[in-house]
Amino acid sequence: MGGTKNTTTRVGKASFGVSKCTRPARAGLKPDSPVNLDQGDPTMFEEYWRKNKESCDVVIGGSELMSYFSNPHIMCWYLLPELEDSIHRLHSLVGNVSTEGRHIIVGSGSTQLLQATLYALSANSPQPVSVVCAAPYYSCYPELADLLKSGLYKWEGDAYNFDKEGPYIELVTSPNNPDGYTRGPVVNRGDGKVVYDLAYYWPQYTAITHQLDHDIMLFTFSKSTGHAGSRIGWAIVKDEKVARKMLKFMEVMSIGVSKEAQFRAAKILGAICDGYEGFRPIDTENFFEYSKRLMIERWERLREVVNQSEIFSLPKFSQEYCLFSSEFTENHPSFAWLKCKEELKDAQSVLRGQKILARSGTKFGVDPTFARVSMVSREDVFNAFLERLSATKGAVSNGNMA
Amino acid sequence: MGGTKNTTTRVGKASFGVSKCTRPARAGLKPDSPVNLDQGDPTMFEEYWRKNKESCDVVIGGSELMSYFSNPHIMCWYLLPELEDSIHRLHSLVGNVSTEGRHIIVGSGSTQLLQATLYALSANSPQPVSVVCAAPYYSCYPELADLLKSGLYKWEGDAYNFDKEGPYIELVTSPNNPDGYTRGPVVNRGDGKVVYDLAYYWPQYTAITHQLDHDIMLFTFSKSTGHAGSRIGWAIVKDEKVARKMLKFMEVMSIGVSKEAQFRAAKILGAICDGYEGFRPIDTENFFEYSKRLMIERWERLREVVNQSEIFSLPKFSQEYCLFSSEFTENHPSFAWLKCKEELKDAQSVLRGQKILARSGTKFGVDPTFARVSMVSREDVFNAFLERLSATKGAVSNGNMA
Repeated sequence: MGGTKNTTTRVGKASFGVSKCTRPARAGLKPDSPVNLDQGDPTMFEEYWRKNKESCDVVIGGSELMSYFSNPHIMCWYLLPELEDSIHRLHSLVGNVSTEGRHIIVGSGSTQLLQATLYALSANSPQPVSVVCAAPYYSCYPELADLLKSGLYKWEGDAYNFDKEGPYIELVTSPNNPDGYTRGPVVNRGDGKVVYDLAYYWPQYTAITHQLDHDIMLFTFSKSTGHAGSRIGWAIVKDEKVARKMLKFMEVMSIGVSKEAQFRAAKILGAICDGYEGFRPIDTENFFEYSKRLMIERWERLREVVNQSEIFSLPKFSQEYCLFSSEFTENHPSFAWLKCKEELKDAQSVLRGQKILARSGTKFGVDPTFARVSMVSREDVFNAFLERLSATKGAVSNGNMA
Repeated sequence: MGGTKNTTTRVGKASFGVSKCTRPARAGLKPDSPVNLDQGDPTMFEEYWRKNKESCDVVIGGSELMSYFSNPHIMCWYLLPELEDSIHRLHSLVGNVSTEGRHIIVGSGSTQLLQATLYALSANSPQPVSVVCAAPYYSCYPELADLLKSGLYKWEGDAYNFDKEGPYIELVTSPNNPDGYTRGPVVNRGDGKVVYDLAYYWPQYTAITHQLDHDIMLFTFSKSTGHAGSRIGWAIVKDEKVARKMLKFMEVMSIGVSKEAQFRAAKILGAICDGYEGFRPIDTENFFEYSKRLMIERWERLREVVNQSEIFSLPKFSQEYCLFSSEFTENHPSFAWLKCKEELKDAQSVLRGQKILARSGTKFGVDPTFARVSMVSREDVFNAFLERLSATKGAVSNGNMA
């Protein structure tokens, strides 16, 4: 450090001036290394953005974006106008949700916004409000609700088993993480509030069947475009009072959200829209066509291996008409929800025997014959996953389980 | 939107390719607009970074920084190695704290890290741990501790009045926000933990009298360099178990911290160090000399106006020897802690009468004869503040109070 004088620092390849590449080339997967598909790190989309780099660079000068404030004229005062524009524009393009006249609250990923939502919906409650979600539910929800032992809200588990009286908050993840199914609320009582986690309601994962218009809908940059490292999420909120309380949470907990990340998210989301409006490099597909094609290919290859394995099964999805692509399509989730044969008991262990790291069904509120595996890793990791998965049958019949 | 095709988006002035300036020029302060000095938005440092822009640009390509992960080999897996390096380097240059062999945990500002700290120090407690700070204390602490009604910790107010039995956490802000004094803990019992909020322990605000080496020390990019919009803070933590629990909090609450913001913070902190190592534009001062000079000038001008006002008084600071600048200096805090004459009762109202928005002493746990005013606004706002402050005497004697 300090011995090299750069006038500009560039992440990635140099394009002008004195620059340096700070990201080392990634080492390939070694044959004896575990294939880690426990997390859903969406690195499969890197390749697309590498090809489209010219349209997606951002340059930020040292004196820019320094203030806490972005726009004193809107409720969410730290939200960059560029990002607000791009969010409206992308939803309008895809047609997945209505943003017209809605409040947009940005957070450090939808993770932080989910907590802001729990706070907003329970802030005046004398008793902890029950938080539920139908199993299998996203494995992070229980800890997210209970980490700080809040007196405002409390995780109460599987919505199917929920029979407590009083107010509740139901989280509806649709398409669902881990199993990929399209979902609706299951409790359906008058004293409940429903929060829609729509992280995967994008054309690469599912058919866009309706322009949704729920009270609270959460999205994340991670899953829409693959930019997980930016930690940008957004909530689309109908009720002003709820939006104000969410904003209060954001102010107290982190005094807003990184402007650099907001600026880059604005650029990337905008670039996707540009593509559909004709401003794209000639030889590159638009983002949702590209990413959907890749998801379909990966799911086809996975289903083939799983069918031959005779050990695992996968969810089956029906064809739905997608308003965005104007064709029938089925879900191609970001995760594979593998179920092993009952006699094998523990899907995570069976996979670990082949050095595949998956997340056990027990983390999602169901039994260990299920395990969740990420479908959005880099290509070499996905290939290694399929290769090892196809070796499972022989290993299990030889009794070589981990 | 969409009608303009940019190959690169640049915040600020164009320097190459097709670029656009997305930040509109700031409108000047109107004579009848309030001068808002309620928050401590550190925009006074913008000018420095504008002059040094060549050395501080960052360029981020569309496919870079996409993964959740930054460095699988360290505990804080989302921390960019560049930022870790810059943090070590800057503290080593300034000599304000020891980072050798310490754990560094990065958060969305020190605000988020303070909560991570409260969680880490109380996670196994059967009863809520008392959180205290000597008054006047930073006005956000009470809400930050109590917003979610956690069963783990609870705000118990002024440390001077604290007499509850059992474990406690004392927050020590030094130099202090709001009054600027150098501080130490006041409870000093065996069952307590002390968290040092060292946001202002930098040469522009105070003498660097010791290389501190406390168990938990918090810093923020906002106050060190003025980049509040980035929301980057860091904790320097001695105990591995505490660091791991803080990391747990960061994982559950926001799955890490924006990499764009981390990357830019690494660049800016690094650029400060570069300056001291001889790599700086010929006609520009180094950052701490520049910022200290400005703080001294502002404080001299303020003291002159306050002395003439006969209404307000200010804290007085003693000279201390600064190990960084090798000279005697007094504190030049980021906030002016104004006390009005007892008979005027309410300093915030007196200031509001002159269209100066300040924060009342009551928010800091003391009486309303005190009010806090930011000293780090842009130059035109600071000038308007002094002008209006000098008009206070006449207004008060004429009975024209708000």
